[in-house]
Amino acid sequence: MWERSLVLSAPGKVILHGEHAVVHGKVALAVALDLRTFLRLRPCTEGRVCIRLPGVGVVRSWDTSCLQALRRGFAADFDESKSPSVEQLDTLKEFAGIAAGASAPESLATLAFLYMCLAISAKYGDVPSVDILVWSELPTGAGLGSSAAYAVCLAAALLTACGAILCPLKEGESTARWTEEELTLINSWAFQGEQVIHGNPSGVDNAVGTWGGALRYQSGKITPLKRPFEAEEIVAVWALGAAGGLKERGKEMSLVASRVPTLRILLTNTKVPRSTKVLVAGVKEKILKFPAIMNPVLDSIDAISQECQSVLEAMPANPSPEYYPVLEELFDINQHHLNVIGVGHPSLDRLCRVTASHGLHSKLTGAGGGGCGITLLRPDTSPLAVEAAKRDLCACGFECWETNIGAPGVTLHSSSSLSAEVLHALSES
Amino acid sequence: MWERSLVLSAPGKVILHGEHAVVHGKVALAVALDLRTFLRLRPCTEGRVCIRLPGVGVVRSWDTSCLQALRRGFAADFDESKSPSVEQLDTLKEFAGIAAGASAPESLATLAFLYMCLAISAKYGDVPSVDILVWSELPTGAGLGSSAAYAVCLAAALLTACGAILCPLKEGESTARWTEEELTLINSWAFQGEQVIHGNPSGVDNAVGTWGGALRYQSGKITPLKRPFEAEEIVAVWALGAAGGLKERGKEMSLVASRVPTLRILLTNTKVPRSTKVLVAGVKEKILKFPAIMNPVLDSIDAISQECQSVLEAMPANPSPEYYPVLEELFDINQHHLNVIGVGHPSLDRLCRVTASHGLHSKLTGAGGGGCGITLLRPDTSPLAVEAAKRDLCACGFECWETNIGAPGVTLHSSSSLSAEVLHALSES
Repeated sequence: MWERSLVLSAPGKVILHGEHAVVHGKVALAVALDLRTFLRLRPCTEGRVCIRLPGVGVVRSWDTSCLQALRRGFAADFDESKSPSVEQLDTLKEFAGIAAGASAPESLATLAFLYMCLAISAKYGDVPSVDILVWSELPTGAGLGSSAAYAVCLAAALLTACGAILCPLKEGESTARWTEEELTLINSWAFQGEQVIHGNPSGVDNAVGTWGGALRYQSGKITPLKRPFEAEEIVAVWALGAAGGLKERGKEMSLVASRVPTLRILLTNTKVPRSTKVLVAGVKEKILKFPAIMNPVLDSIDAISQECQSVLEAMPANPSPEYYPVLEELFDINQHHLNVIGVGHPSLDRLCRVTASHGLHSKLTGAGGGGCGITLLRPDTSPLAVEAAKRDLCACGFECWETNIGAPGVTLHSSSSLSAEVLHALSES
Repeated sequence: MWERSLVLSAPGKVILHGEHAVVHGKVALAVALDLRTFLRLRPCTEGRVCIRLPGVGVVRSWDTSCLQALRRGFAADFDESKSPSVEQLDTLKEFAGIAAGASAPESLATLAFLYMCLAISAKYGDVPSVDILVWSELPTGAGLGSSAAYAVCLAAALLTACGAILCPLKEGESTARWTEEELTLINSWAFQGEQVIHGNPSGVDNAVGTWGGALRYQSGKITPLKRPFEAEEIVAVWALGAAGGLKERGKEMSLVASRVPTLRILLTNTKVPRSTKVLVAGVKEKILKFPAIMNPVLDSIDAISQECQSVLEAMPANPSPEYYPVLEELFDINQHHLNVIGVGHPSLDRLCRVTASHGLHSKLTGAGGGGCGITLLRPDTSPLAVEAAKRDLCACGFECWETNIGAPGVTLHSSSSLSAEVLHALSES
């Protein structure tokens, strides 16, 4: 029986550059977003498993014996290298009373939990008697990797509960991270969870949720950027900074900024709904219609991602303002290109215009056609300017967060390191 | 002695696509703008030459004998294939009392007149006793080819006065144009006038002023578009339409539109001053800074020009609305590209936004950084929408003309075919 309580978190992600172009074989840069999903793992009544997702109104619990029986009924073995089969998922849906074609977040989240719980416990031992509560700062369905952050948290929690990985948090530490080998295992199982939710995910979101920082993605190949994750001590500082940040973000930020290249951003959700599928199809159509006009634009976007990667890798721990004009220029250029390939939207134009009026540079992130935009903040952008921009963005009906990109990946937290808001959210039982 | 009075005109030009990219060897499309420069040629007191430019406050006259003497003093022979030499221009400046470094329009216009008058008369006979008045619908210094239209008018008038070309206007005709061979001669001399004014012009502006329609320009090579100038009768209709249009533009427009692919536009001058030289240098700097990002953008602009050329050449005499969405899309894409290469301006963004709010598509034309923008009007764009757009553009402090592109080149007019405004402007003496 699992006896310890623990809290862990994983970051969301945003695409910094290369959205849509990545579909056509170009480079994309994905970065961890310091809006996080938190998971509280507690012992449960012996012989029960409970999952609580207050954000989507899910509270489900099952007898571990039922889950063990269900697990035995599956023909295929579970393994982190195998994808969930349609039959397995159909069986789980029937078991959990989820309709065959259900695509609501609460159904998919429940299904992913069940699958991961059975699969991980099948490989590493018995179904553990655990009570899991997940709460997120991330909006769902906004292209911010909320499902991957959820899957990463579940993988880390279930692997820990089954004893497949150790709990690295020592007495008196505020945060801790797993070893590289353990992170690789967490990522593999998180990818399975993503497959349950998304069918055919790229694997970028769970990689960002696991390792944090910034990743380069091209044609299925995921490579971490050299900075800020090449040096051990920098990772440690990130973790410390993030943990402190959870408690008192404003105060601890200076510590982080003094040691690693922190990119402060505004993340703005226009709340304009869009279909990624329709947008991707529209880009393809434009390329077929005007190949000689559109293919060079994709090449230019590819070069923007690579230029941005070079700048990020060259940025020292405490970057001087000189690095920012290039990053801003790349934002502006790519935003034009994204409009050219047809994934802009008047709401995003408005977002860019509003932030430009405060001297800030923005681009859409992700699918476009509405959805989210990111605005780069310089280290020396005044709090007054940021507040004014946020106020104007909210006046447009947008939702706006001041946060960081390049955040640490999946992290364990001591209770004392958590902010009051997170503690409150996790205190529901 | 020249005994006949005649009025002729030449159109301005706008760049439809390819501005700036043309500097880097890409294709540009230049089209004739139906804002015209008019020249009235009259007999003068025997032995006198007079040039009147009411728009810039010039009224100058000289004894033909003085000009003949001046002409003889020049070492080099005049020929339409030779460029004006620095020595020739210095001599003319001294003669006309123009300071050595003078660059004001009135100084350059006077100098160009003197050079062309001497050079053309030297080749074809005596200095003619003529009184020339030039008045233009074109604003100067706005990149609309006003100097080329002036030079084309001067070349046509002086060549006619010297008997080098015939006056093709017959009794009872409202307009007439010269033969292809005569147009070639007019263009050669107009290019000389442009050289006096601009030093090292591309030759596109005078070619558009001479032939009208639409021209493709790449690496010094100028090619007319196949349509609408391949068929004789279409040229005739253009001329008729334009002439009628001069009198009652609104009413005659339908006649033009019913026979040839007329592109109606709004031409808007933001009146924001800019330096073409500085803008061209800025683009070069961006290309050197980000070659992998910028060169594909130039390639894409090149493809836009070529796609637009294909569409224009494929458009039937009376184009159905189906051709317009592509033209509009190319406008939008290129406007984004021009922003990417750094020649946009908030005033141009505003222009585009204002017209977009009326469902119209715009791009900057020419150097950018302010200056002019063009807005495509569909044949079925309602007059109310056009009026509303014009009103909103004027409310921004912009100047706005509703006109056509693809206008006829240098044209002779009967007095009766001229509008009251033109007649009034030319009646000053």
